[in-house]
Amino acid sequence: MKDLIVDANFPRSLDERVYHLGIRPGEVANRIITVGSPSRAQSIAACLDVSPVPFTLSSERGFLTITGRYHGVPVSIVSIGMGHPNADFFVREVRECLDGDMVVVRLGSCGALIDVPVGSVVVPKSSIAITRNYDYDFARGSAGEPPYRISKPVDADSDLHTALQRALRRTRPGGLEVHVVDDIMNASADSFYSSQGRQTSFPDHNESLLEQVKGTHPDLGSLEVRGAAFSPAGDS
Amino acid sequence: MKDLIVDANFPRSLDERVYHLGIRPGEVANRIITVGSPSRAQSIAACLDVSPVPFTLSSERGFLTITGRYHGVPVSIVSIGMGHPNADFFVREVRECLDGDMVVVRLGSCGALIDVPVGSVVVPKSSIAITRNYDYDFARGSAGEPPYRISKPVDADSDLHTALQRALRRTRPGGLEVHVVDDIMNASADSFYSSQGRQTSFPDHNESLLEQVKGTHPDLGSLEVRGAAFSPAGDS
Repeated sequence: MKDLIVDANFPRSLDERVYHLGIRPGEVANRIITVGSPSRAQSIAACLDVSPVPFTLSSERGFLTITGRYHGVPVSIVSIGMGHPNADFFVREVRECLDGDMVVVRLGSCGALIDVPVGSVVVPKSSIAITRNYDYDFARGSAGEPPYRISKPVDADSDLHTALQRALRRTRPGGLEVHVVDDIMNASADSFYSSQGRQTSFPDHNESLLEQVKGTHPDLGSLEVRGAAFSPAGDS
Repeated sequence: MKDLIVDANFPRSLDERVYHLGIRPGEVANRIITVGSPSRAQSIAACLDVSPVPFTLSSERGFLTITGRYHGVPVSIVSIGMGHPNADFFVREVRECLDGDMVVVRLGSCGALIDVPVGSVVVPKSSIAITRNYDYDFARGSAGEPPYRISKPVDADSDLHTALQRALRRTRPGGLEVHVVDDIMNASADSFYSSQGRQTSFPDHNESLLEQVKGTHPDLGSLEVRGAAFSPAGDS
């Protein structure tokens, strides 16, 4: 990672490694599961075929890539941390290491705005972004300027959404109390605290934020800060 | 971190640890240096007094906190990764572990928009945020909607800015070719690639972005994606 950089537009090391994830072509698969922490990545990687031995690379910048096979099919598990800037690094640097389709499923925890049992699996059909407006004066308030910006919805890829729904229903263990929830909208926030409506000691002007958003989007059901808004494959 | 959570607005473990950084009151100092990678944190921590032995905690979510003393003065070094969502976790969770002033200096690399030697130290006087507009159609273009949002400037804390300038000048080794640059504005971006004007295979509509921003802000001199826009102490 400290090698001579040859292109400021898309820096790579002399051995073709991308700058933040540290991988190069051949070290990542077209089918990818992303998660937010290395321990989650390792838990999922335990399901990979034992042979060939999976490839593992932990980068200086906190990205962990594990590439192996599941029942013979190449798959990567990539831990990318939290927030949409990290998702942006992931999407762009992996894309430059691959030919052909790139299929991404994001696995993580979320807050629920609907009444479902803990442990339910949510596969949103779309996502909006809730972001802080940096031009709002959070200390004193601003007239004519909203404290938060709510984006238009971005749809999940419909083929991938359907495939994931079906696979989850097919493989769901019998006797489980929990649900697969697949008909709601998700909100991806830039702040776990303010943009998700939490009330803390900070002057976040967010007391009515979630009610406002639900007024516009009655099908809003989940909230997270995991960077799903940049995923080309939706927020699953 | 997997303990029972007692408050959804500001979750902590039963032993008072904040949810993402994993620390609790007493484990972080009021004077803090943040960096983007654990190895940088360790390099700086090597300067701490050897006694008392520094406290170190690496959280499940990728935050590393090292707290010790420098010439007897308590100081923490916290590695928070990249992006403003991570900076938001850091500011809020550390704030709830401290009484009194919280002084934050962010140390990291940046891109230069001015002609200075590599190795120069930039201490910006203010920062703007350059962020992607999620409502812009990057695939097809959108009429009447800008692809990027440029925030108003946020000033660095002037006392801290002056103290840092003076300390850097006072301790600068003789014979160095590099400069201390303290009169420029910084831009904190949400994407290393698109919002910093890099030209890649993605349709980023950013060919003229930096020229546009420099037209409005002629004193813009540095670019980074390290989350400095959220720091209450400016972007130093």
